[in-house]
Amino acid sequence: MSAAKEMGAEAPLLLREDGADGVTILTLNRPAARNSLSLRMLEALENSLAEIGENGRIRCVVLAAAGPVFSAGHDLREITAHRADADGGRGFFDRAMETCSRVMQAIVGLPQPVVAAVQGVATAAGCQLVATCDLAVASDHARFCTPGVDIGLFCSTPAVALARAVPRKAAMEMLMLGDMIPAEEAFRIGLVNRVVPAEKVMDTALELAGRIAARSALTVRMGKRAFYRQVDLPLGEAYREAACVMAENLMAHDAAEGIGAFLEKRRPVWEDR
Amino acid sequence: MSAAKEMGAEAPLLLREDGADGVTILTLNRPAARNSLSLRMLEALENSLAEIGENGRIRCVVLAAAGPVFSAGHDLREITAHRADADGGRGFFDRAMETCSRVMQAIVGLPQPVVAAVQGVATAAGCQLVATCDLAVASDHARFCTPGVDIGLFCSTPAVALARAVPRKAAMEMLMLGDMIPAEEAFRIGLVNRVVPAEKVMDTALELAGRIAARSALTVRMGKRAFYRQVDLPLGEAYREAACVMAENLMAHDAAEGIGAFLEKRRPVWEDR
Amino acid sequence: MSAAKEMGAEAPLLLREDGADGVTILTLNRPAARNSLSLRMLEALENSLAEIGENGRIRCVVLAAAGPVFSAGHDLREITAHRADADGGRGFFDRAMETCSRVMQAIVGLPQPVVAAVQGVATAAGCQLVATCDLAVASDHARFCTPGVDIGLFCSTPAVALARAVPRKAAMEMLMLGDMIPAEEAFRIGLVNRVVPAEKVMDTALELAGRIAARSALTVRMGKRAFYRQVDLPLGEAYREAACVMAENLMAHDAAEGIGAFLEKRRPVWEDR
Repeated sequence: MSAAKEMGAEAPLLLREDGADGVTILTLNRPAARNSLSLRMLEALENSLAEIGENGRIRCVVLAAAGPVFSAGHDLREITAHRADADGGRGFFDRAMETCSRVMQAIVGLPQPVVAAVQGVATAAGCQLVATCDLAVASDHARFCTPGVDIGLFCSTPAVALARAVPRKAAMEMLMLGDMIPAEEAFRIGLVNRVVPAEKVMDTALELAGRIAARSALTVRMGKRAFYRQVDLPLGEAYREAACVMAENLMAHDAAEGIGAFLEKRRPVWEDR
Repeated sequence: MSAAKEMGAEAPLLLREDGADGVTILTLNRPAARNSLSLRMLEALENSLAEIGENGRIRCVVLAAAGPVFSAGHDLREITAHRADADGGRGFFDRAMETCSRVMQAIVGLPQPVVAAVQGVATAAGCQLVATCDLAVASDHARFCTPGVDIGLFCSTPAVALARAVPRKAAMEMLMLGDMIPAEEAFRIGLVNRVVPAEKVMDTALELAGRIAARSALTVRMGKRAFYRQVDLPLGEAYREAACVMAENLMAHDAAEGIGAFLEKRRPVWEDR
Repeated sequence: MSAAKEMGAEAPLLLREDGADGVTILTLNRPAARNSLSLRMLEALENSLAEIGENGRIRCVVLAAAGPVFSAGHDLREITAHRADADGGRGFFDRAMETCSRVMQAIVGLPQPVVAAVQGVATAAGCQLVATCDLAVASDHARFCTPGVDIGLFCSTPAVALARAVPRKAAMEMLMLGDMIPAEEAFRIGLVNRVVPAEKVMDTALELAGRIAARSALTVRMGKRAFYRQVDLPLGEAYREAACVMAENLMAHDAAEGIGAFLEKRRPVWEDR
């Protein structure tokens, strides 16, 4: 991968490839550990998302994973090792959970949309990543699971993302039973947008991301930010915020250009292209 | 249409027909402009909804549209024309967006339920109208779309209604991709309640509205108001409000009559009929 | 039933059977009155839930019903009788609605998960019970309905639970039309988790409850409480709360044991078993 960067000292935990079309692919690259989210992996994600957020040339992100598993969630070996710490692990656990929650919120807060390309099993915080992304494409072999209840650690942070993506009883069923659900069921409940044959996952994610990247970046950014701001507000406040955003959006070059091009039946030329 | 009224100076932008059964049909009547929501159309809707809200004889509203398109959303020619204003359009854009948001909230706040009869394509603020109505019946030829992202103007206000009607990733997909979705998909994600053959859209909407209109108007009004009040509240507050409404509802004539009639296996006679 | 207790003076309105596996079956036992929720039945439920919440040996609850009907909601004969009270019933109505709302919130607040086993028709507050339970298994003959609108008493408190379980337009359709919906449709909209042949309803509910009961009780309790706390909060607050819960959960014996057992490929031994 041309623009791949090593995010850690020893191995590239996270690969980043910036495409010429404005689509950046972030790839979880710890396949031997089922792409588990060690603290270093979470910090790599946090740093990478911070860099991407500042980079005006990146217009959409695809979050993918190397190997057969998308992500198995937190790194249980790392967690267990820290039980030997003087504080029994408490400091590490706080740091890991806070970092993980910041990463999830960084995806929501990222100016650019993030499309998950889920080629395999996504469990616990790995499933939370999928629930958190703006859009998700899944392989028909992908499966989804929040199995913390089986190991004495309820998936309480994954529940935050899951409860906002799927109906309440569907979330409760995944959380309380911990069963693997197939991709088609994940589609039915709204956890993923598309289910495609395994060999088409990346192409489909890139196609969606490419279409988003071809739009006015300003417009996409204003829209994504406004969406997540209004969604937690009561209706009246939500409309107050969103109406302001619409009027501001209308004053921007790209709206004048886009609407003008539409009326004149020509292709628009966005300002930052 | 017997009770049709001209809402504008030149042409009846909005037709209103008050049926003897308490069902009022409001028809967007600007088919040559794809029923786009010009400021005058929005003001006609606002005025009409205000009148309907005050009219105790109207018990349910069907929102329909003339011609092949349900509504194409804001009037892009009008928006573009106002760019020549001294302020570059800002005053007009603020006014249009605020008026549009008031119209949407007027539907939610209207004492009477509103059933959308969607015979054709509903895009942007037209799709928002459908998402906002209490119930929606769609033709199997109807399609739905929030394509602002294609013209540099993200559908941020439509997103307010959409995010409250459909699962979050389904909303994001419509908003970020701007694809037309068919009626069956709109049904699957919860945007419409029924999909029927094109020639049955109005009959079906009128049948649902007629059934609602035959109920106790007081009860329907108390229920609609309570529904939207509780839906934005935390659970404890929601129950506090709703339990009060139930006790008050029980004290009303129509509950005594309705429950009595049910126990006596006879038809109830509502107070305001 | 071995552990069945009489909850009222004359008849056992509510049966309670505590299984050796930690699963308690609560059975609405007023089949001749379609298991309607009289004030005494609601008080029996409230008392029973309070006892269960204090009982560390109970790890999951199945809420079932005797006879062909799951529950017909409030007791309309009782309501009508209280219209002869000096206050026209107001005091009784307040008490009934407040008690009912406390019962529903007691299910949500109960440390143990509650699985509804819905063998027949569930209407009004009976449907609300199903919507309120954490999980629900329905017979393919079960049907669901919020028909208050037909008797002049809008299902405003059932709406609180319904609007949190199913998409908004689906809730509005049930509330405004009052139609019976079949089990398959209840599954489609997310009101129930499983639809099974009539003769398998109890076995399926018991199987799900048994699987939950076999897990670490501490973990399940922390998870259920955290789920309902975060679900009403804005995203940032939700993550703050949930990340704390995860770190605390990790410090508990059962997480150390569960994660250890997983890594060592052995069965975990929970602390309170």
